[in-house]
Amino acid sequence: MIRIAVVGHLARTSGDFSVNDLPGSAGRMDVLCRCVNSSFFLSHDLRRDVECYLVLCGGPATDKMIRISGEGVRHLNPDERSTGALLKRALSLPVGTSFREASPGIQVRCGGLADLASEFSFAILDEAGGDIRDEPELPEAFLLSDHLNFTGEERGILSDLPSYSVGPLSLHADHAITVLLNEVDRRRMI
Amino acid sequence: MIRIAVVGHLARTSGDFSVNDLPGSAGRMDVLCRCVNSSFFLSHDLRRDVECYLVLCGGPATDKMIRISGEGVRHLNPDERSTGALLKRALSLPVGTSFREASPGIQVRCGGLADLASEFSFAILDEAGGDIRDEPELPEAFLLSDHLNFTGEERGILSDLPSYSVGPLSLHADHAITVLLNEVDRRRMI
Repeated sequence: MIRIAVVGHLARTSGDFSVNDLPGSAGRMDVLCRCVNSSFFLSHDLRRDVECYLVLCGGPATDKMIRISGEGVRHLNPDERSTGALLKRALSLPVGTSFREASPGIQVRCGGLADLASEFSFAILDEAGGDIRDEPELPEAFLLSDHLNFTGEERGILSDLPSYSVGPLSLHADHAITVLLNEVDRRRMI
Repeated sequence: MIRIAVVGHLARTSGDFSVNDLPGSAGRMDVLCRCVNSSFFLSHDLRRDVECYLVLCGGPATDKMIRISGEGVRHLNPDERSTGALLKRALSLPVGTSFREASPGIQVRCGGLADLASEFSFAILDEAGGDIRDEPELPEAFLLSDHLNFTGEERGILSDLPSYSVGPLSLHADHAITVLLNEVDRRRMI
């Protein structure tokens, strides 16, 4: 099982946005939709052994987490707009601090980065880390930031975690996930 | 200069589609939008040394080609919908067999795969090819198919071209571009 978590600093925590304006009123929800795409899609198949967590921190309510399970997810298509519609549906549900299913394989709860970081031993994907190609073994849980850097408070939460890089240039989060999973694929095929 | 060309078998050749329905009435234009994203975007930067060609074969008119130049392109954002709007604008222009500028860095002309393949020495990105990591030198022009396989007629046009693979699994075209460019980045940094 590979776990991938992405922090959406501006991502709306309520479902009152338009799927035609994912970058704007939804708070760069387009970034998170592309990360979902990268986490799961193969040509004519889905990565059933991946679990993707989105941490939405853009208000107006308390932070929320969405969990997408490759094993159970249905109705997931590669385009941003339809993924945005699935996220909007999840964010429209009233939720507490336990996960609630919004659609098959997609669950939502209240909670932020500190809650998620306490559950799994994440490694951070960051251009300052060691190259994934040089690591004898890769972790099984990775955390990324969206288009913004981690805040000072977040860095405090994550300060003890190892960092890994996917290459010499700083990439978009969804591209970093694609390169990471390619390295995982290659190691599994050896 | 890296050239990346993607064949959109169903992609509409006229601008009469809705940017809210890129997968449907636009003929899987979402696939091409994601390939444009993968070809150009770095974190807070664009790949200025990439040229991306889209070959649109979904009618109703004759096949068209769109050329996007990393050096000259403006107004390119990473989300699918805004890229779709740039492509729609280009496809709304009356054009002949010479490139015509639709917006800065984006040009359009009539012409199909045979025309493009006669201009550049493409290598095909395909899961059946040799692994890019094992190649002493990489080509500078790559051709991919969208979510559909190349047709028999296209295979005839491309039969003499070398093939390269980006890993052990069959990936979406945009993911394959991301992995390819990561390999290019790494070789340039050595």
